[in-house]
Amino acid sequence: MPEVKDKQPSPKALISFAHELADKAETVTLPHFRKALAVDNKAAKGDFDPVTVADRKAEKAIVGMINHKFPNHGIVGEEYGNRNEGAATRWVIDPIDGTRAFIMGQPLWGTLIGVVQDGKPLAGMMSQPFTKERFWGSPAGAFWRQGTGPARRLRTRTGVDLSHAILATTAPDLLDGREDAFERVSAQARLTRFGGDCYNYCLLASGFVDVVIEAGLKTYDIAPLIPIIENAGGIVTTWDGKPATSGGAVVACGDRKVHARVLKLLAN
Amino acid sequence: MPEVKDKQPSPKALISFAHELADKAETVTLPHFRKALAVDNKAAKGDFDPVTVADRKAEKAIVGMINHKFPNHGIVGEEYGNRNEGAATRWVIDPIDGTRAFIMGQPLWGTLIGVVQDGKPLAGMMSQPFTKERFWGSPAGAFWRQGTGPARRLRTRTGVDLSHAILATTAPDLLDGREDAFERVSAQARLTRFGGDCYNYCLLASGFVDVVIEAGLKTYDIAPLIPIIENAGGIVTTWDGKPATSGGAVVACGDRKVHARVLKLLAN
Repeated sequence: MPEVKDKQPSPKALISFAHELADKAETVTLPHFRKALAVDNKAAKGDFDPVTVADRKAEKAIVGMINHKFPNHGIVGEEYGNRNEGAATRWVIDPIDGTRAFIMGQPLWGTLIGVVQDGKPLAGMMSQPFTKERFWGSPAGAFWRQGTGPARRLRTRTGVDLSHAILATTAPDLLDGREDAFERVSAQARLTRFGGDCYNYCLLASGFVDVVIEAGLKTYDIAPLIPIIENAGGIVTTWDGKPATSGGAVVACGDRKVHARVLKLLAN
Repeated sequence: MPEVKDKQPSPKALISFAHELADKAETVTLPHFRKALAVDNKAAKGDFDPVTVADRKAEKAIVGMINHKFPNHGIVGEEYGNRNEGAATRWVIDPIDGTRAFIMGQPLWGTLIGVVQDGKPLAGMMSQPFTKERFWGSPAGAFWRQGTGPARRLRTRTGVDLSHAILATTAPDLLDGREDAFERVSAQARLTRFGGDCYNYCLLASGFVDVVIEAGLKTYDIAPLIPIIENAGGIVTTWDGKPATSGGAVVACGDRKVHARVLKLLAN
């Protein structure tokens, strides 16, 4: 049943509904994972940005459920654009973040579902259906669950110097030509790992990754992850220290001192 | 009970025992995955080659079981070196292949268990306990299983041109300074993905990845994977087309024509 128009849902209600959306999305995405599938080329000039049938079907299903439950909320989706753009409460959706991982069979992609309230990320969820993991965050805290197991509270790792930090990014060619800046951080870090997409931010929230650096992100690539990172104790901004809600060049850290140091290295 | 000394176990018996070894190994490795753990630095001069408590414990457990069951077999392990080096049948073990993935929480590492007979890989298994996946291969075929689900036969993807191929490698800095050669292949492929370790070879055997290129491998990094790749229809050699059993610079392909083309590009 649709909610009464002006009632503001609680973070708890938003997360509960995000679980319902993720449940629905996985019935659409998972049957296509590790199956032969058609890969369209969405990007214009040779950039490889695969869009799967699963991606589109999942967004349609999610959007339908949001429209029904919260008809006055806005929606920002990867595949079908925006609706109710002026709404104070907007759902930001990426049905399959990590399409490269998806089409090659690595279980590091995720369904991202976020809620942005008055321009600020309020609640967010990452669902990885193959590993049966959910990571979510709201003012009530950040949590992880696998299958029907108990929800465990997430905390970033703090007090680690950059020289002991684990740094992750999805791919060198996704750094928008700013590999030099990344390399300055990588040279200081203990270990650098490529690959991972949204999964890396969730591992950062979980305290196993210390720094994630990326560039060229869209709002739906990062806004749903911000409440998970921040409510686990981490910090996420653009490379120049501004809010990362709109995407762009993004850096997430588990420790605030490491974040300050990384921003300096990126700007150098 | 130990086997009679000169009886040669069948491939079926070897795979069955490999499952037992993997069952044992996961009771040792999984409790350490995504837990705070001590990371030693095994490499001499700043190279980061982490060895976990789990790695060593798992190898000890596996070696103990092999010594008991097949006392006259040889064992080649990552952590504790070789035993019975002159034996015709040798077990090649890497308890945690993909230590970077392991310590940062990505479920792309694996326990590798292989059997080399008269210098040739005969049977092999990759076990990923977090996703509950097993990939294995022998002259009886290559298979995948998740949890208690049915075993499914693996087949590589064939008939794909390099221009449509998905290429994977673990990390640019693990290519032993031969990034140029890799780059020549990457420029021709449809999509390149970093990260993945042993998991990439298993996805190649499963038909989702077309080419895996790596360098600096040890025998225990690749020998257990060769029977999985070959018995799924794929081919794996060194960059100069020789047997990959001893490791080194390795290229695996799902399709033989693609393999021939990749070897030329690497040699160019």
